[in-house]
Amino acid sequence: MSENNFKKKLKKVNQIKITKKTSITSLMLALNETGFNAKRLAVACEIYEKMIKDPECVKFFGLAGAMVPVGMQSIIHDFIEEGYIDVLVTTGANLTHDIAETLGYHHLQGDINIEDLDDAILHKDQINRIYDVFLPNEVYEGIEDFISKLDIPSKDMAVHEFLKFLGKQLPEDPNSILKIAAEKDVPIFCPAFTDSGLALQIGFHYKKLNLNHFSDMLKLIDLAWDSKKAGVCIIGGGVPKNFIFQSLQFCPTSARYAIQITMDRPEPGGLSGATLSEAISWGKVNEQAEHSMVIVDATIALPLILWYLKSTIK
Amino acid sequence: MSENNFKKKLKKVNQIKITKKTSITSLMLALNETGFNAKRLAVACEIYEKMIKDPECVKFFGLAGAMVPVGMQSIIHDFIEEGYIDVLVTTGANLTHDIAETLGYHHLQGDINIEDLDDAILHKDQINRIYDVFLPNEVYEGIEDFISKLDIPSKDMAVHEFLKFLGKQLPEDPNSILKIAAEKDVPIFCPAFTDSGLALQIGFHYKKLNLNHFSDMLKLIDLAWDSKKAGVCIIGGGVPKNFIFQSLQFCPTSARYAIQITMDRPEPGGLSGATLSEAISWGKVNEQAEHSMVIVDATIALPLILWYLKSTIK
Amino acid sequence: MSENNFKKKLKKVNQIKITKKTSITSLMLALNETGFNAKRLAVACEIYEKMIKDPECVKFFGLAGAMVPVGMQSIIHDFIEEGYIDVLVTTGANLTHDIAETLGYHHLQGDINIEDLDDAILHKDQINRIYDVFLPNEVYEGIEDFISKLDIPSKDMAVHEFLKFLGKQLPEDPNSILKIAAEKDVPIFCPAFTDSGLALQIGFHYKKLNLNHFSDMLKLIDLAWDSKKAGVCIIGGGVPKNFIFQSLQFCPTSARYAIQITMDRPEPGGLSGATLSEAISWGKVNEQAEHSMVIVDATIALPLILWYLKSTIK
Amino acid sequence: MSENNFKKKLKKVNQIKITKKTSITSLMLALNETGFNAKRLAVACEIYEKMIKDPECVKFFGLAGAMVPVGMQSIIHDFIEEGYIDVLVTTGANLTHDIAETLGYHHLQGDINIEDLDDAILHKDQINRIYDVFLPNEVYEGIEDFISKLDIPSKDMAVHEFLKFLGKQLPEDPNSILKIAAEKDVPIFCPAFTDSGLALQIGFHYKKLNLNHFSDMLKLIDLAWDSKKAGVCIIGGGVPKNFIFQSLQFCPTSARYAIQITMDRPEPGGLSGATLSEAISWGKVNEQAEHSMVIVDATIALPLILWYLKSTIK
Repeated sequence: MSENNFKKKLKKVNQIKITKKTSITSLMLALNETGFNAKRLAVACEIYEKMIKDPECVKFFGLAGAMVPVGMQSIIHDFIEEGYIDVLVTTGANLTHDIAETLGYHHLQGDINIEDLDDAILHKDQINRIYDVFLPNEVYEGIEDFISKLDIPSKDMAVHEFLKFLGKQLPEDPNSILKIAAEKDVPIFCPAFTDSGLALQIGFHYKKLNLNHFSDMLKLIDLAWDSKKAGVCIIGGGVPKNFIFQSLQFCPTSARYAIQITMDRPEPGGLSGATLSEAISWGKVNEQAEHSMVIVDATIALPLILWYLKSTIK
Repeated sequence: MSENNFKKKLKKVNQIKITKKTSITSLMLALNETGFNAKRLAVACEIYEKMIKDPECVKFFGLAGAMVPVGMQSIIHDFIEEGYIDVLVTTGANLTHDIAETLGYHHLQGDINIEDLDDAILHKDQINRIYDVFLPNEVYEGIEDFISKLDIPSKDMAVHEFLKFLGKQLPEDPNSILKIAAEKDVPIFCPAFTDSGLALQIGFHYKKLNLNHFSDMLKLIDLAWDSKKAGVCIIGGGVPKNFIFQSLQFCPTSARYAIQITMDRPEPGGLSGATLSEAISWGKVNEQAEHSMVIVDATIALPLILWYLKSTIK
Repeated sequence: MSENNFKKKLKKVNQIKITKKTSITSLMLALNETGFNAKRLAVACEIYEKMIKDPECVKFFGLAGAMVPVGMQSIIHDFIEEGYIDVLVTTGANLTHDIAETLGYHHLQGDINIEDLDDAILHKDQINRIYDVFLPNEVYEGIEDFISKLDIPSKDMAVHEFLKFLGKQLPEDPNSILKIAAEKDVPIFCPAFTDSGLALQIGFHYKKLNLNHFSDMLKLIDLAWDSKKAGVCIIGGGVPKNFIFQSLQFCPTSARYAIQITMDRPEPGGLSGATLSEAISWGKVNEQAEHSMVIVDATIALPLILWYLKSTIK
Repeated sequence: MSENNFKKKLKKVNQIKITKKTSITSLMLALNETGFNAKRLAVACEIYEKMIKDPECVKFFGLAGAMVPVGMQSIIHDFIEEGYIDVLVTTGANLTHDIAETLGYHHLQGDINIEDLDDAILHKDQINRIYDVFLPNEVYEGIEDFISKLDIPSKDMAVHEFLKFLGKQLPEDPNSILKIAAEKDVPIFCPAFTDSGLALQIGFHYKKLNLNHFSDMLKLIDLAWDSKKAGVCIIGGGVPKNFIFQSLQFCPTSARYAIQITMDRPEPGGLSGATLSEAISWGKVNEQAEHSMVIVDATIALPLILWYLKSTIK
C-alpha cells in the first residue's frame, strides 16, 4: 500500500438522510457510504445481489442458531424459493423446529423481560426456553407421531437424501424449509444431525438406522469441486460454517463471494468468529473474493437482506 | 409468576414474511412478534414512539461512540429537529467531529477490509483511523481556526451554555448537531468535555477558561427533577449513560420509558453494559417502566429507528 | 425472595490481597468472595472440585474451540489422566490436531500482532492460520500417512469405538488426548465427526466406511441415564455442549453440577451462549444444581482450573 | 513480509504442562508460548515488567469499570504502593467507592445466580445493584458526612489537586487508592468527575465550587510531553483510555509500551474497544511499541498481573 494509492481510495463518508422517500434499496446504498457494521451490512447485501446475478455462482448457505423458533423460518423458506440458496447446511435443531412448525405446532413468545422468568417453574410447566422464545414439550409428541409413521427407504442412505425424503413426507406449507428444499431440489446437509431432538426420535424408533454421514461429506466436496464459482453466506457460524468451508478448499477457485452474519468474534480463536480473511490462508475463500463479515444479530440482518434482495432482483 | 398466568401470556411466534408491500412500519410490527434482538429493536421503536406521543415525557438522549465520523450526524440532527430529543448528553469527540463536518471538512471511508491497512503508514500520512473511517490531521487545523476566533462571553460559564454559544457561532448546515440544538434550544451536556480534541484546542487558546462542570451536573438534575415523566434513549453507553441515569435518580418517578442500543454486555460489570433492569434497583428506571435493551450496532439501529419514527409520527 | 432473607444472604466483598504467600488455592478462595467473572471462575473451580470428590458423579466434559492448536492439549490430557473426565465430547478439529501433535508434528506461533499478517501470502506459503496460531499444510500429509495404514475392524462401528481404536494405534505420547482416553477407557464422542480434516482423509481412503453416529447418540443417552449424579463442564459451547445437554435430559436427576467457560453470550439466542439457568427449563440441569458460567477465554481459564484442581485434590 | 522471513519467525506452540512446581512466573512464561488471549495476557505481563524495569518509563494507568465494588481496590492500591503506577486516570465512580471502603463501609456480594434477583425489591430495600455486587444506600450517608466537613482550600483548584486534598483527609487504610496516591504523590485524574455520586454530594454542599477540569487536561499533557518514554496500561476503556491517549499524542515518542485489558471489541467503532494498532495512526502509540490487548475480564487479569509483577520485580 503506497501512500498516494491509499489516499486516492478514500472517499467522503456519507452523512445519511432518512426521508419520506427512503426505501430499503436507498437505505443500503446510503449505508454503503458510511462505516462500521452499517457499511458491512450494506456490502453484504451488495455481495449477495452479485452472487444471485452471477449465473456461474453456486450459492452455499450455512444456517446456525435458533432461527426457526425465533420467527425466521419463512425468511429461509423464501431464500430457497427465490433461488437465493443452492446448497443449505444447517443444524438438526433448525430442522426439528421446522418440522414442528410445518406440522402445525408453534413456538411461543413471552415478554422481552426475561429477568422475570423462573426456569424451575418453566420446567414444571414443561415449557422449554430458548432465550425469550418457548417450546412446550407437547410439540415433541407431534413430531414423534410424524416420525413413527415413516417408511424409510434405506437404512444407510445419506443424511441429505433422508432429509429430502423427510421434506416430501411433510404437508404443504408456505413456510417450511424442508418442504420447499425438497420441491426445489436444494440439498440440505446436516453434519451434526444426531445432535438434535429430531434425530433422537428417529434413533428411538429405527434402531437399525445408520444414516451415512460420510456420503454427505463427500457429496458436499463434489458440489464444491464442480462449482465454477462459489459464493457463501454464513448465518451464525458453528458446524455449518466449518462444513461448508472445509468443502470450499476443494473448489478450484475457492469462494469468490463470502458473507457472514454473526455475533461471534475472532479473539477467542474459534472458527465461528474467525474472519473471512483468515479463510483465505486455508484456501477456503479466494484472495480476490469480495467478502463482508457483519457483527449483528441475524434476526435483524436476515429480514433486511431478504427485503433488499426481493427489491433489487428482477 | 404463577403457572397459569405465565402460560396465558405466551403468544405464537410470528414467522415473518417479507413481501413487495413490506414497509419499515410493517417490518417492525412483524419483528415485534418474534424474539431475540429483532423483537427488542421493534419494542425499542414502539417505546420511542410512545415517548414522543406522551406530552408529559421529557426525552433524555445519551450518545456515545464515533457516531458522527461514521455518518450518523444527520440522523442525530433529525432526531433533534423533529423534537425527538429534549436533552442531549454526549461525548466531546462527537462534538469535535460535528464541528469538523459543519465547517465543511469530512470524514473519509476506505475499504471494509481493514486487515490491509498499515497504521504506521497512516501515521506518516497524517490520517487518523477510527476502525474503517478516517480523519486527516488537516481537519484539526480548520477547527483550530474556528476556535481561535471565538469571543467567549464568560470564562466560567457552564459547559452546556458554552456549547450553545458554540452552536450559534457555527454556519448554517443541514446536518449539524450543535447548530440545530442551539436553534431548537435543546441543551447539550458533555460531562467529559476536556476529554476531546475540541477541548484541547479551546484549552490551548483560552488558558484562563474554567468552564463550570458542576453547573451542568446540577442543571441536569434540575431537568430530571422537574420532569413529570422521563424517557431515556441511550446509544452506546459510557459517561452519557451514567450521567443521565445519576440524574434520573432525582426524577420523582424515575424513567418511565427506557431504551438502550449497545454492543456492551452486563457480565463484565461495567455501567455501559448493565441491564435496564439493574437500573431499577438504583431508582434510575421506574419498576413499571417499559424498557428494551437491544444488543446491536448503533449504525444499523439508528437509521431504522429514525425511519420508523418518521413513518409513524404524525 | 423476601426482603429479610435476601439481606441476610449478603456478605462483605473481599478486597483481595496478593502477597508472597499467594497460591492458586488461596487466590481462588479470595476471588470467591468478590464478584463478576472472577467470582464465577472461583465458583467453577469449587464446583469442579466437588464433582471430583463426589463418588457418585459422572463427569461429562464438552470441548469446542481450537484448544489443541493453541497449546491446551496437555491440559486436556491431564484432566483425563487425573480422572477429572469420565466422558469427553469434542470436535473433529481437536482430534485432528491431537493426532498431528501425537505424530510429532506441531502447531506454530507467530507474533500477537496479527494486523501485520497477509493471508494471501500465507496461502501461497501453505500455512493455515487459526487466529495467531499456524498449521503448515505438510502436517496433513503426516496425518494422511497414518490414516492410510489403518486396518479398520468394522465399517459401521460407532464413532466412539472408532476413536478408541484410533487412540490405540497412536504412539505413546505424554500429551495425546486420544491415547490417554483409550488407555483410561474414557469414551470420546464426536457428533460432527465428518466436519473435520481427519474425517476427510478417512473418507477419501475408506470409501465404504459408514461409522455409526446414531449408536453414539444412543450410547451417550445410556451413560446419562445410568448416572446417579451427573456433572458437566463445557469449554466453549457448540455441538459438544448441545450433545451433552440433550443426553442429560435423560439423566434421572439432570446435571447436579454444571460449569461453562465461554466467550459466547445469551442475547443472540444460540445454545452456545445460553445460560445454565435456561438449561433448567429443559431438564438438562437440575434446579438444585450448583452452576457457574464464566465469560472468559478458555486458554486463560483452563490452566488455572487444572492448577487449582491439582493443588486441592488429594 | 517476505515468505522466508515470516516462516523463520514462527516457533512451535508450547503444549503447556501444569505440575506441582507451577508458579505464576512459570505459568506466564509457558502461556507466552501459546496463542489467543492466554498469550496476550502473558505478553501483557512481560510488557508491564519491562515498563517497571525501564527507568525512563513514565507509567500511565487508566482504570474504568466497577473495580473497587468488585474487590479490586487493594490490587490498585498495591500497584500504586509498589511504584507500578506514576499517573492514574479513573472514573468518579471508582473514587466514590474507594472513599466508601476507606471510611469503613463495604460493598456486598450475593449469589452468582442473579437470575433469582428482583430489582424492584432491591429498590424498596434501598440496595443498589452492580451486576452481582451490591451497595446499600446508607453508604452514601457516610460519604456525605465526610464530604460535608471538608474545608476545601480553593474553589477553582484543579480536579487532581482536589483529589490529592481528599486523599489526605481520609483515614489511614491498607487498601485506599486515594490515600496511597496522596502519600506517594501519584496524581489522580478524573476527566468525568461530575459523573459520580461523589461529585453529586460535593456539588450539593459546595455550590460555588468550580473545580478546574481544563487544568487537569493541560497538566496531563505536560506530563506526557515531559516523558522520555511513556508506558500505558488501560483497564476497561472509556474516558480514562481516551484521556490518556489524547495526551500521549503530545509525548515526543508516543507510548513505547501499551497494554489493555478489556472485554470491549473493535467492530462497533468505539474508542474503548479500538485496537492498540489503531492508536499508532493517531500518534498515541509508537509504531515500534510493544503492545498487547487482552480480551478478558479485568477481575481475572488484574490479580494475575499483580501476582506476576510482585513475583518478578526485585
